[in-house]
Amino acid sequence: MGRAAARIIGLKREVCVSAVCDSKGFVVGRGALDCDTLAGVTGDLVESYRRTWAGQEGGGTAVAADVEAEHAADPLGGLLERADAFDAVLVALPNLPNEFIPSVVERFVRRRQGLVFVDVLKRTTAVRLMYGLDPLVREARSVVLTGCGATPGFLAAAAVLAAQSFISVEHVNIWWGVGIANWDAYQATIREDIAHLPGYSVERAKAMTDAEVEALLERTNGLLELRRMEHADDVLLQRAGVVDRLEQVEVGGVMDTRHPKKPVSTTMTLTGITHEGKRASHKFILGDDTTMAANVIGPALGYLMRGAWLKARGLYGVFGSTEVLPMVAR
Amino acid sequence: MGRAAARIIGLKREVCVSAVCDSKGFVVGRGALDCDTLAGVTGDLVESYRRTWAGQEGGGTAVAADVEAEHAADPLGGLLERADAFDAVLVALPNLPNEFIPSVVERFVRRRQGLVFVDVLKRTTAVRLMYGLDPLVREARSVVLTGCGATPGFLAAAAVLAAQSFISVEHVNIWWGVGIANWDAYQATIREDIAHLPGYSVERAKAMTDAEVEALLERTNGLLELRRMEHADDVLLQRAGVVDRLEQVEVGGVMDTRHPKKPVSTTMTLTGITHEGKRASHKFILGDDTTMAANVIGPALGYLMRGAWLKARGLYGVFGSTEVLPMVAR
Repeated sequence: MGRAAARIIGLKREVCVSAVCDSKGFVVGRGALDCDTLAGVTGDLVESYRRTWAGQEGGGTAVAADVEAEHAADPLGGLLERADAFDAVLVALPNLPNEFIPSVVERFVRRRQGLVFVDVLKRTTAVRLMYGLDPLVREARSVVLTGCGATPGFLAAAAVLAAQSFISVEHVNIWWGVGIANWDAYQATIREDIAHLPGYSVERAKAMTDAEVEALLERTNGLLELRRMEHADDVLLQRAGVVDRLEQVEVGGVMDTRHPKKPVSTTMTLTGITHEGKRASHKFILGDDTTMAANVIGPALGYLMRGAWLKARGLYGVFGSTEVLPMVAR
Repeated sequence: MGRAAARIIGLKREVCVSAVCDSKGFVVGRGALDCDTLAGVTGDLVESYRRTWAGQEGGGTAVAADVEAEHAADPLGGLLERADAFDAVLVALPNLPNEFIPSVVERFVRRRQGLVFVDVLKRTTAVRLMYGLDPLVREARSVVLTGCGATPGFLAAAAVLAAQSFISVEHVNIWWGVGIANWDAYQATIREDIAHLPGYSVERAKAMTDAEVEALLERTNGLLELRRMEHADDVLLQRAGVVDRLEQVEVGGVMDTRHPKKPVSTTMTLTGITHEGKRASHKFILGDDTTMAANVIGPALGYLMRGAWLKARGLYGVFGSTEVLPMVAR
């Protein structure tokens, strides 16, 4: 997902990447880093970045004079020491365990004032932890936009819009389709999805070897069908006043790990009752030729821009992806 | 549309109606007015309100002690003299001529500080005039949200969301269906739509007698099909960075003036190119059993709440309906 973000940011002029890290090191520039190089990273970030750079420059493993590419025992600490290099953070770290991303954001806001964070968190538990950081985030004159990927995020935002026509909302159904040709490019994502299957837990999914994942997918013909996933669309839509009860929101979908074509069209369906007492459903349907990367990173960047807008106007705190839209008048 | 607003607001607890006017008079309360009475108004507002009230109370034409229901040569002036009675204004006046609604908002902001306005303007020209009021609106520490009905408004907002997945947007198509059983309940709306037909102008449509409208509808079997309408979705989407050129946005639709069933499902289709170079379309499709009233007034109230939120935080000025959403990172 980080690589996809680099590729997409590289095509935009209003945002750039100036710092990036993985679990083993960081790359920080005094200006914008080359997004093509970042998008092409395989394996170890620092090694891959240096290798590509050296290849382009014709030898050696040095990087540009205004770039540091270093292995580090604590890469996040390395970024924090260089936190003047960036204004905003797109958190595309693995979702599991639930405390991981909130703890990273907490570490940053305790050290540095005036940042904007956007996460693409999925689980209700994790988004709740993020909301708990609100006092710290305000104190740090910072903005966190949470749950800003595809679901929650993009599709939950569509539900907030759809809710406008109704006096009461009965049900929000988010049913996604994802097709990927090679599941090993999305190892963390796949394990996060497996954790939603009956009989699996976050811990069990995380502990699975590649061979075990392979064997599981072999039994399902490469398809993962997930129902009633713990997705934070529920708490985000509750906070926006779209639903009263979390059970009114249902998230599920089908992932095909062997074909890039989506097995079903990703669709948000909101059903409600109008002021005339009629039941009706609005639908938001994503084009099959848009990938998970496009539907996660695109919206995340849109939220990041809105987060910067809020920060520039002194509106600090933790906001859900459903809370920077027309409101729901109850 | 004003009656529908009263009916919808009557079903909500976060908003109430405290003042209302038509071209002949006004009704202003010290507290909330009875929305059932307002929703039942036929013909002259003041007369109808007094009659209903008297009927409920068993005789006389007096209204409640804390309500004024008065005919006036200048009803807007009457409201302005009682402007402490309200915090926000939902402008559901006729759209034509283009200067009318902007001039009403200008009159209010020149006299009274700290109001929130939401309009359901349709035409590009009118929304441009509204944007021109920005300095005055800021000076009055007020907020105007413009173009907040169904189209522009609801469907343009859906286009802003849909745009998030793409590197470039090629085309936004808004194709609406409206079914009404009795066109005479929507006389102003029908004339506004006729003005979009080839060979008609705003002036010509406005000057048509009821018999002439009837004769036109007789020839088309009650259907009005409109293409390439001058709708402000274009300028609103341009301001939000979704499109570069106004021509990339196309609004049209079919109105059946004889049946309540929609002749086509109202659909916003946004087509763009992803970072992987693929062309795809996202769609937002409204349930056929939602009426124009639900899809105009519902969103307008959601924008009104957001307008109040902006005002409470000192963010004044004129905002388009596409500008209180995730932004588009270009």
